[in-house]
Amino acid sequence: MTTNKQVVLASRPAGWVKESDFRVVESPLPTAGDGQVLLKNIYLSLDPYMRGRMNETHAYAASVQLGQVMTGETIAEVLESKNPKFKVGDSVAAYVGWQQYAVSDGTGLRPVDPKIVPVSTYLGTVGMPGVTAWYGLLKIGEPKTGETVVVSAASGAVGSVVGQIAKIQGCHVVGIAGGQTKCDYVVHELGFDVCIDHRSTSAAEALGAATPKGIDVYFENVGGPLLDAVLARCNSFGRIPMCGMIADYNATDRYGVKNLISAVGNRLKLQGFIISDHREIWPEALTQLAQWVREGKIKYRETVTHGLENAPKAFIGLFKGENFGKQLVKI
Amino acid sequence: MTTNKQVVLASRPAGWVKESDFRVVESPLPTAGDGQVLLKNIYLSLDPYMRGRMNETHAYAASVQLGQVMTGETIAEVLESKNPKFKVGDSVAAYVGWQQYAVSDGTGLRPVDPKIVPVSTYLGTVGMPGVTAWYGLLKIGEPKTGETVVVSAASGAVGSVVGQIAKIQGCHVVGIAGGQTKCDYVVHELGFDVCIDHRSTSAAEALGAATPKGIDVYFENVGGPLLDAVLARCNSFGRIPMCGMIADYNATDRYGVKNLISAVGNRLKLQGFIISDHREIWPEALTQLAQWVREGKIKYRETVTHGLENAPKAFIGLFKGENFGKQLVKI
Repeated sequence: MTTNKQVVLASRPAGWVKESDFRVVESPLPTAGDGQVLLKNIYLSLDPYMRGRMNETHAYAASVQLGQVMTGETIAEVLESKNPKFKVGDSVAAYVGWQQYAVSDGTGLRPVDPKIVPVSTYLGTVGMPGVTAWYGLLKIGEPKTGETVVVSAASGAVGSVVGQIAKIQGCHVVGIAGGQTKCDYVVHELGFDVCIDHRSTSAAEALGAATPKGIDVYFENVGGPLLDAVLARCNSFGRIPMCGMIADYNATDRYGVKNLISAVGNRLKLQGFIISDHREIWPEALTQLAQWVREGKIKYRETVTHGLENAPKAFIGLFKGENFGKQLVKI
Repeated sequence: MTTNKQVVLASRPAGWVKESDFRVVESPLPTAGDGQVLLKNIYLSLDPYMRGRMNETHAYAASVQLGQVMTGETIAEVLESKNPKFKVGDSVAAYVGWQQYAVSDGTGLRPVDPKIVPVSTYLGTVGMPGVTAWYGLLKIGEPKTGETVVVSAASGAVGSVVGQIAKIQGCHVVGIAGGQTKCDYVVHELGFDVCIDHRSTSAAEALGAATPKGIDVYFENVGGPLLDAVLARCNSFGRIPMCGMIADYNATDRYGVKNLISAVGNRLKLQGFIISDHREIWPEALTQLAQWVREGKIKYRETVTHGLENAPKAFIGLFKGENFGKQLVKI
């Protein structure tokens, strides 16, 4: 252990991100100074938002600079501590990027307890994606018992939690996912009422049969023509929390949404959000999510890619739906 | 006075509404029964929302049936009263449609006082369009002092009030209107800071210079490519009250909005509304609007077309920007 393997941004993608946009480098092992800890990363979380950080300009956070380590959250073990708040062997969630080791002064480190839920869960259901689902659905979507909730990317880290919380709320829940295997999982394991396979059928047409009472809440993860289909079926006063539009992240010519006029007549609310704006709700959300996981009310699946050097390939797979559930890298 | 001239729906327009979609008919003069009043309409209000009522299906209100009198609000005089709440000579705002006379049991009649503001004003600035501006801007847009507010259809019945209220709130206000005459009026008479003439320039390009600090509130009246240009310039946590998308009302192939992804990164809220849902705020809004008009803080302009038989032509003109300010018909 003398070097630190890192994945850095090699070039800014124009359109689809490629493996050559990343570069794996070795740098000297960092050392912890006064007040700092040395972290050994165990798991790296791969999330669609990272695609935006690869662009030259970014709406709400700093872009990754060329040659800089890719941004991202990890689960890490404290290897060495010169900070009284942490002791060697502690597990923490850390926002230290795509690398094997990192030093931190402790700011933003979130202690995680492997005795409550498995440690990787803190990057998924009991982490940022779970809180994203919790906040977007409950605080913007505000689903009521008996209402119809539709969620895209339904087997993913966020969508799977959205649908299961909506079921806990007593809603009719329709998922949309890519492939029969994912759809079976969404219905039979996660308990959604219906799941539409957008690879084998026109989601727009299938949406009619799946939502006989219309749509009250649509949790938007993907963008594209699906949003038009949803807008055409929204009930009055429908709510659309906008979490992401993954279909557009790599697009050079984006899909044009034609049914936005429905937002006027049907008094729809479309609201984008970024979960890091809402730090005040994290403790409540994380506590509730951990409890639901322990009670078996929220299930999850993970795809674990082994080896940091394989992170770029796994990341690209996110946009092609190659992952099943939360995408992690075991470092 | 033995007959009642009426304008009825002759055919449902496919795309652009035509004069032949209407028919002027004469029917027997109605008579007031017990509890009813006979109304003589003085002014008819023409509003873009009426286009939607001509379609076979409608999101939030009944469609006008073929052969039925076109729906609309009027200012009327009570000619005859068998209802103790109204006396002969009273002025009321009535939702009785495109015709010379009508009977009403009094439901929904709103007394108007010509001593406070001119009687036609109750169909515009101190009526539905004014309340629409008041609610959409203040309750959904929530503009703060120093913020930038953009409003399309800026010289129109709604847009003109939106911009003037935004100025009262201390905002930087940018209007968009069609033609230099309207733009001059918007800046020099209504007091907007800037007005972009979308007929002589690319509104999208001009928007950059007109909104150096970005856009915080966009009051959406028109739809189309302008919304994309606005989305590209919205500041974080921007609000877009969606009042109408007049550019789409007659469209057979609607414009596709490509920059909706900006709503995620910039945490935008787009919210459609229909002012008839919010009856509880009308008294407060109308009182305040009337006061602002009396104090000269809100100015307005009207285009008055003479003769009920000319209503169809004037209505079509609304979608071509032929009106200047509130479009009325003097019956």
